[in-house]
Amino acid sequence: MSDMRSTADAPRSPGRPRSLRADEAIIEATLDLLAEGSNVEALSIEAIASRAGVGKATIYRRWAGKDALLLDALRRLKGVLPQPAGHSIRDDLILLVGAIGKNVDPRAEKIMPCLVPAVNRSTDQYQLYQNIIAPRRQLMREVLRRGVDEGVLRADVDIEVTMALLTGPMLIQRVLQWSPDLNDVDLPERVVDAVLEGIRAR
Amino acid sequence: MSDMRSTADAPRSPGRPRSLRADEAIIEATLDLLAEGSNVEALSIEAIASRAGVGKATIYRRWAGKDALLLDALRRLKGVLPQPAGHSIRDDLILLVGAIGKNVDPRAEKIMPCLVPAVNRSTDQYQLYQNIIAPRRQLMREVLRRGVDEGVLRADVDIEVTMALLTGPMLIQRVLQWSPDLNDVDLPERVVDAVLEGIRAR
Repeated sequence: MSDMRSTADAPRSPGRPRSLRADEAIIEATLDLLAEGSNVEALSIEAIASRAGVGKATIYRRWAGKDALLLDALRRLKGVLPQPAGHSIRDDLILLVGAIGKNVDPRAEKIMPCLVPAVNRSTDQYQLYQNIIAPRRQLMREVLRRGVDEGVLRADVDIEVTMALLTGPMLIQRVLQWSPDLNDVDLPERVVDAVLEGIRAR
Repeated sequence: MSDMRSTADAPRSPGRPRSLRADEAIIEATLDLLAEGSNVEALSIEAIASRAGVGKATIYRRWAGKDALLLDALRRLKGVLPQPAGHSIRDDLILLVGAIGKNVDPRAEKIMPCLVPAVNRSTDQYQLYQNIIAPRRQLMREVLRRGVDEGVLRADVDIEVTMALLTGPMLIQRVLQWSPDLNDVDLPERVVDAVLEGIRAR
């Protein structure tokens, strides 16, 4: 706290503007509180403001409410979206499958699993979770549709089930280490090849 | 507590023997404490004994230690193993896939997801988790091997990846409601048919 005050008294640094530093502190405070075991439903703007060393008004100036702030904070855990190169359907799928369940922030391991009960209990939390994963799912859907358009994949492929077949194995392996007989490293390729075996145009 | 003492003073009831009633109380106390948010690593035999209204010695007479007790308690959440009929590979797989992520006890929804961080942190907890799921995974492996032996499935099928393809989609859909475009009811059949498309003998 005394550190923050002396920073505020110091001449403006040439780095990021003040508002970005506050945003960062608010996001960090949110993730810290969740990683320490704060329940996502019980977590309050008051608690986040207090932890970040800012006023509640500073939070509300930037985010419409708790869910909007949580969405930004939780998306941060996942990092930037992967970028399929657009040449080979197989390569693009391996890239997307390889990104499943990967988080750039170690706090994710503590936060994500314990979101599950909240996601199942509340429509707001379910929507929040869907908003986090929807852009990644959309990328995969576009690659599969491109495969159908290009005639690489069968025209009658069940796109939604195929997406679950590509996603599920990687997610349970990365999050749960589901099988001691599989490993993260070659699993994306093995899953994509096994799935392509069933959906490739013949 | 006073209730337990009056029961102890009463003539022996003709129902279940005393030791089974104590076992039940111990299992229930364990599951209640976990469902209320007790951390699986921090949970102590003392706390379980106190909640169950028994002495620690009563617990140690029946279980070698905390992990053995947790294994019994957590297996209870999942209910009895499914019984494949052994006629059709497709029917047996649909039965097994349909049982994935199903729990017979509503406390499971709160307990299972929050086990994930402990499972990733500790070898003991990982072993515990593997002991819970291993018998179910073995059932699926046996059906797939039978399919290969009977010539219904390709001889070169990647059994371990196929098991992950059958399990992952159902688990993420049932535990996370992963896709709003899929539903629990017809998913087992759709997943099995999509997977069989790739592994059926041609």
